[in-house]
Amino acid sequence: MSSSYYTGYKKGDTEFVHTGYGKNVVKVLTIRREGKHHYIKEIEANIQLTLKTLKDYLHGDNSDIIPTDTIKNTVHALAKLKGIRTIEEFALDICDHFLTSFQHVRQVMVYMQEAPWKRLEKGGVGHVHAFIHTQEATHFCEVEQIQNEPPVVHAGLKDMKVLKTTQSGFEGFRKDRFTTLPEVRDRVFSSIVYARWRYSSPRYINFDAAWNSVKESIIETFAGPYDTGIYSPSVQNTLYEAQCLSLSRVPEMEEIEIAMPNKHYFTIDLTKFGIHQNNEVLLPVDNPSGNITGTLQKRPASKL
Amino acid sequence: MSSSYYTGYKKGDTEFVHTGYGKNVVKVLTIRREGKHHYIKEIEANIQLTLKTLKDYLHGDNSDIIPTDTIKNTVHALAKLKGIRTIEEFALDICDHFLTSFQHVRQVMVYMQEAPWKRLEKGGVGHVHAFIHTQEATHFCEVEQIQNEPPVVHAGLKDMKVLKTTQSGFEGFRKDRFTTLPEVRDRVFSSIVYARWRYSSPRYINFDAAWNSVKESIIETFAGPYDTGIYSPSVQNTLYEAQCLSLSRVPEMEEIEIAMPNKHYFTIDLTKFGIHQNNEVLLPVDNPSGNITGTLQKRPASKL
Amino acid sequence: MSSSYYTGYKKGDTEFVHTGYGKNVVKVLTIRREGKHHYIKEIEANIQLTLKTLKDYLHGDNSDIIPTDTIKNTVHALAKLKGIRTIEEFALDICDHFLTSFQHVRQVMVYMQEAPWKRLEKGGVGHVHAFIHTQEATHFCEVEQIQNEPPVVHAGLKDMKVLKTTQSGFEGFRKDRFTTLPEVRDRVFSSIVYARWRYSSPRYINFDAAWNSVKESIIETFAGPYDTGIYSPSVQNTLYEAQCLSLSRVPEMEEIEIAMPNKHYFTIDLTKFGIHQNNEVLLPVDNPSGNITGTLQKRPASKL
Amino acid sequence: MSSSYYTGYKKGDTEFVHTGYGKNVVKVLTIRREGKHHYIKEIEANIQLTLKTLKDYLHGDNSDIIPTDTIKNTVHALAKLKGIRTIEEFALDICDHFLTSFQHVRQVMVYMQEAPWKRLEKGGVGHVHAFIHTQEATHFCEVEQIQNEPPVVHAGLKDMKVLKTTQSGFEGFRKDRFTTLPEVRDRVFSSIVYARWRYSSPRYINFDAAWNSVKESIIETFAGPYDTGIYSPSVQNTLYEAQCLSLSRVPEMEEIEIAMPNKHYFTIDLTKFGIHQNNEVLLPVDNPSGNITGTLQKRPASKL
Repeated sequence: MSSSYYTGYKKGDTEFVHTGYGKNVVKVLTIRREGKHHYIKEIEANIQLTLKTLKDYLHGDNSDIIPTDTIKNTVHALAKLKGIRTIEEFALDICDHFLTSFQHVRQVMVYMQEAPWKRLEKGGVGHVHAFIHTQEATHFCEVEQIQNEPPVVHAGLKDMKVLKTTQSGFEGFRKDRFTTLPEVRDRVFSSIVYARWRYSSPRYINFDAAWNSVKESIIETFAGPYDTGIYSPSVQNTLYEAQCLSLSRVPEMEEIEIAMPNKHYFTIDLTKFGIHQNNEVLLPVDNPSGNITGTLQKRPASKL
Repeated sequence: MSSSYYTGYKKGDTEFVHTGYGKNVVKVLTIRREGKHHYIKEIEANIQLTLKTLKDYLHGDNSDIIPTDTIKNTVHALAKLKGIRTIEEFALDICDHFLTSFQHVRQVMVYMQEAPWKRLEKGGVGHVHAFIHTQEATHFCEVEQIQNEPPVVHAGLKDMKVLKTTQSGFEGFRKDRFTTLPEVRDRVFSSIVYARWRYSSPRYINFDAAWNSVKESIIETFAGPYDTGIYSPSVQNTLYEAQCLSLSRVPEMEEIEIAMPNKHYFTIDLTKFGIHQNNEVLLPVDNPSGNITGTLQKRPASKL
Repeated sequence: MSSSYYTGYKKGDTEFVHTGYGKNVVKVLTIRREGKHHYIKEIEANIQLTLKTLKDYLHGDNSDIIPTDTIKNTVHALAKLKGIRTIEEFALDICDHFLTSFQHVRQVMVYMQEAPWKRLEKGGVGHVHAFIHTQEATHFCEVEQIQNEPPVVHAGLKDMKVLKTTQSGFEGFRKDRFTTLPEVRDRVFSSIVYARWRYSSPRYINFDAAWNSVKESIIETFAGPYDTGIYSPSVQNTLYEAQCLSLSRVPEMEEIEIAMPNKHYFTIDLTKFGIHQNNEVLLPVDNPSGNITGTLQKRPASKL
Repeated sequence: MSSSYYTGYKKGDTEFVHTGYGKNVVKVLTIRREGKHHYIKEIEANIQLTLKTLKDYLHGDNSDIIPTDTIKNTVHALAKLKGIRTIEEFALDICDHFLTSFQHVRQVMVYMQEAPWKRLEKGGVGHVHAFIHTQEATHFCEVEQIQNEPPVVHAGLKDMKVLKTTQSGFEGFRKDRFTTLPEVRDRVFSSIVYARWRYSSPRYINFDAAWNSVKESIIETFAGPYDTGIYSPSVQNTLYEAQCLSLSRVPEMEEIEIAMPNKHYFTIDLTKFGIHQNNEVLLPVDNPSGNITGTLQKRPASKL
């Protein structure tokens, strides 16, 4: 077909390491009505299928392709047929659908995130059908399943910005000829936290409760007791403490990755203007930012 | 200087309608410490000065220019010298500084917005020094002042996303050959609200309380009573009602502009898949979006 | 209808300063085929109508509303019926349509921008039907027309990033206690240029040629002769020179606004590492940025 | 230190799978001057180090940490000491620096991308020192090196938007109950191409020439001969052809991943307005988008 145009290389000398195709940014809002009370879930998903055959890539033979348009339609239809209790369960439903409906699908991967709609509330009373978009952290998940294997479920949170004005320092680090950073015992510590964790099994998990538990664990580790705070000797150490607390609170969690960028706030030197200050005026710095990451797992022994 | 390179046009035949220069995206975080309790304000500002002279533009004579770097430094210094009680008051302080320090500054314009940091809270108790970024609506202001004149203060909110699942319709509109929209009595209504209003005088206003009052007025008009909601016959009408309520609640407000884009959620037709549904699965549409705007003022008579 | 819920304020004490509604981010791609040769235009438009009546806002009476969905459909249909020669002409067509089709439309405003598709080229030969997105500057226009009045046409360019490594300085400026900027005779000058101009009349203008002429004028003024460059004593002065050259080259232009942010590149001090350098390593700074603006018009006398 | 606050879980039951920290969005502009002719490179990099020790995470002992601020300073200093010939070579220099300067660094990862500055040109003559930002595709690379091992070099391009108005179809695909897509023999095909490939060895490669060769290979495969084009039976097949051509043209390439999202343009049905058209007016759709990916390698045998 197109092969007559390009010559001079032998296609037979190549092989695929990976293929996959699907639909990205599939959006759905579902409304569940219980009398006057309405409940909503708005999600956005990327779905990718890997087929057992390669003839679409190699020969332009489309007979095995499930069109990406059909994939989008399927998500819409499943939203009604299955409902969206949690994004994790809906992503599992999508994997299950494609693997049970089509024998030639080898693997399904679903990324899904939820829009942070919050019911309007006043004095503890919720509005029957009105919501406001309240961004504190975005809940997402990644579910992968291979034909005839159990699914692998990751959940995560992202874009959670936190800041504390004290109880953070950074001292005793390695110096070389390019080091100009001063040691500091009291600094602002701010981060835009990303966390992603794997569940040992997707069965019988209250996914929303587990997500809230991880969110609270990270906030507690970062902030410490409400009347005193807690000292952070480094982002590295605070990140590790947040992982340990999360693993201890969510028994179904096997492994957790956290990235805690160090969003810098630099003290502005006002003494050059003859003004004395004590770290009261700081400069928020967009870039560069420190980036501290780590992935912690339960020891194999302790998984038993 | 540069004039020898370009020839063939008479510069004398032109005149300036407007000039202005300054610094954009000047950021500051201020920390106020009362014992263990810390209070923060993080702001971002654009400052523009208009000089009485044009020799910088016309002749490359910089002797009247207050460098944009100095403007940035001044914002940093004033953050310490004056403090940031509200963004409106700090913007007023900046205008006042430039107009009283320099006789050759004709006008100062300041745009300022505040980062939505919220103190961590648990059971009604606030953390002494830790905060989380909670986006519901962004508070901004625009303050302009001309030499020897009173300042003009606008405040505003933006990026407030709201959604209701019912109590909205759109019927009885004009039809022509290009009309395909069906009449509908029950639809989802979602918007990303923008509002901007002018105060009659900047004196003795509790700017943060006024801002919250406008935010609440818009939400109440949109959502209606918590147990029943309120019917919206059009975005236009709901926008007008929100303006009226805001004007009635904030007596210092003279005029209010609101833009309420109609962020569409279209019902997905699942009947083509043999699935019956009752508006339970909808498609969030990023673009295009309807855009409804209006600026309402108190009648001159009623201002007296 | 909704008026029973809110009480305590007199709506009669208010009046509208402005109303307007329409559709934002309406997108269209048009293909014109001349045998094997295909020509494309991809545009994005915001359309706003202002009606002579207010009953939609005041009373929820929709009978005069041309739905925003119809506005979108109209743009799609006109793209076929009229074609898109230039964005200015298409925006004029849209204004004309609404004002001649509906007597109750007082004003139409159209913002339109064009996607920078460029025909693939090799050795001066263009591909018959394949294009690549090549962003140097975005062409936009704003056309407004009031019932029974001639249209007002603005064209513009935005997001044009330019940089020169020398032939720029900034000296002799005003100093005060907050000034720390050193005088400099040789610096990097980079900007993200925005320009917007008004035509005296929309008739018989080759809009694309005029746009290219303004783009070239700004680049020439900024860069100077290719073998030597030209010295810029300030952004203010370079902006003015670019305006003068544009006005001289495009006779139909009456007025031009240019904003030339000063996108800073700061020399990094490597001497603290024992490294001698001569302004060879610089730091691109995202914010803050200087922002220099000006609007220049032909003198009324010279317009005759 | 912080361990007294959190109790109830045994840290000893956990272990790190991965750690790493560094600086993100480190920016540098370098200027090389050869007489009046100036040459620039503007880059942005993320650098991540993995140490052999974990005491920073586990115990808040910072003595092995090379601060992220030092990492940034090092990039700045190396930009002068080594220069930036290509981003791949500069990323290799950065890896080498950290691995040879510090015995306790186990691994270095560098992501780097280059700003698309193009020298101003007129009639084949280049300006001595002025540049314009011309976005067609972004050149990036990822270099990883482990202590005492050879580096692994990936290069890539992203954000290359292409469109052809014909010579694309999609037929003969699998149907199920959720399929509504019609078969089509002539459609618009547009994509925002991403490609990333691995070199067999970083020695003696002309990285910029290789990058241009891949860019041209993808464009040629997509567009076909300039006078006729070439038929694409699916994105999958076109992607594969682009990979084969790239592998054949760049002998040092071992493996190439390409993602070709299918950026949809849907024909707008104007017949409902009584207008006949022949696919001349189309709707650009931002989301959802198809996403087709594949990673192709040279067969191990053919690598010998």
